[in-house]
Amino acid sequence: MANTHKSIVEKYWKAANDRDWDTFDSLLHEDIVYEIPQTRERIRGRVAFREFNATYPGDWTLKIVSLVADESQAVSQIVFWVNDEEQSAISFFEFKNRLINRIVEFWPNPYDPPARQTDSIERY
Amino acid sequence: MANTHKSIVEKYWKAANDRDWDTFDSLLHEDIVYEIPQTRERIRGRVAFREFNATYPGDWTLKIVSLVADESQAVSQIVFWVNDEEQSAISFFEFKNRLINRIVEFWPNPYDPPARQTDSIERY
Repeated sequence: MANTHKSIVEKYWKAANDRDWDTFDSLLHEDIVYEIPQTRERIRGRVAFREFNATYPGDWTLKIVSLVADESQAVSQIVFWVNDEEQSAISFFEFKNRLINRIVEFWPNPYDPPARQTDSIERY
Repeated sequence: MANTHKSIVEKYWKAANDRDWDTFDSLLHEDIVYEIPQTRERIRGRVAFREFNATYPGDWTLKIVSLVADESQAVSQIVFWVNDEEQSAISFFEFKNRLINRIVEFWPNPYDPPARQTDSIERY
């Protein structure tokens, strides 16, 4: 089941990147809930979630950086390029009947490092 | 091995929360590399990484929200409370000889949602 979950997430991101919305749709549970905790945005249902993605503005592309899956969940880290800007997204997936029924997604932005009382931190 | 990785990460966060730095230390590979891509901060080595954590300011506590592990990696999401502020952290772990030898960590901050051409987004 861990491998199944990994495969579903690989297909999900490939379908998005290919704008293959029928394949994308086929991986989603009809009652899927998608949430971005940082903005407290939520989308309910396969129809709305497909539309949200299919109408996402910009000439974007994405690539999976990291993907971990177990019997009940999967987590991906992707790099997302849009309008010459590079962003990272981290998505936690849950499943029901081998379909994605919940995604919690984070879009971490760069920030200035705080001052710390250690000299062992380097910048890269 | 997936269960071993899961258990190592559970012990890692418990040791941090308990300020049990000897146990914390015992879970780390001596050549561990820790990175925060958002600030491009990096710490190399077990000694420096222990010191960074042991001297982290504030009366903080944390709790695991989500943890996924497979044969080669693990990912955790924690909630971290410090000075009455709640933050989330997402950490990608890699292992060598059953020790943590790499952590890539994200601290996603809230941001204002962008305008979108769909009315299917709710706020929570």
